[in-house]
Amino acid sequence: MEVRTTEVPDVDRFCRFSRAVLEHVTSRWGVLVLIALLERSYRFSELRRRVGDVSEKMLAQTLQTLERDGFVHRDAKPVIPPRVDYSLTPLGREAAERIWELTRWVEARLDQVATAQESYDGRP
Amino acid sequence: MEVRTTEVPDVDRFCRFSRAVLEHVTSRWGVLVLIALLERSYRFSELRRRVGDVSEKMLAQTLQTLERDGFVHRDAKPVIPPRVDYSLTPLGREAAERIWELTRWVEARLDQVATAQESYDGRP
Repeated sequence: MEVRTTEVPDVDRFCRFSRAVLEHVTSRWGVLVLIALLERSYRFSELRRRVGDVSEKMLAQTLQTLERDGFVHRDAKPVIPPRVDYSLTPLGREAAERIWELTRWVEARLDQVATAQESYDGRP
Repeated sequence: MEVRTTEVPDVDRFCRFSRAVLEHVTSRWGVLVLIALLERSYRFSELRRRVGDVSEKMLAQTLQTLERDGFVHRDAKPVIPPRVDYSLTPLGREAAERIWELTRWVEARLDQVATAQESYDGRP
């Protein structure tokens, strides 16, 4: 059998890439931005208030990452004063729906997790 | 209307807790451990080989976090040499199935993400 020396690096790159995308959609601000944009499109300052407690820089970085991945559409309107709207692409909507389901599942199970933690911490 | 001054801190704690649990199940090794344990129970050393490229310390920490959350069951058998099996609890199976679906979705969309990134990076 021929040994394909390129196989391992390719698999590895695939895994790293897949991991990176998973991190973008499950990051602290990624989750909140995706869920907010499920409701409707937002302007930057509106989105910042909606997400809460995020710095301008972090929100801009998060949006840029999600835009680069093809999840978020950035629409800069040629008006004065400048207006930029952010919305989900169809791919981003798929991502956001999955993240929304996962966070809802986590929230629905928080009591069970808290009970498990108390039991674990109370062991002799 | 009465102002409930405890409301904000409570919501905040709920959010932090929810966020922490989400991080446990979407962490680099958390994802791989949950997916591996969907197949079957594993001994520590087997699991380490299955997950690949994880240090003993990181795997032990990941398992401990997932056990404390009530996702993983640790079964230390009173035999010589000592034998410890790790398996999913019913709650952990729910988490693992959701994470598995999310990672499958990410992997199915990697080509679209790569195309979006190339287009973004190639802009003037």
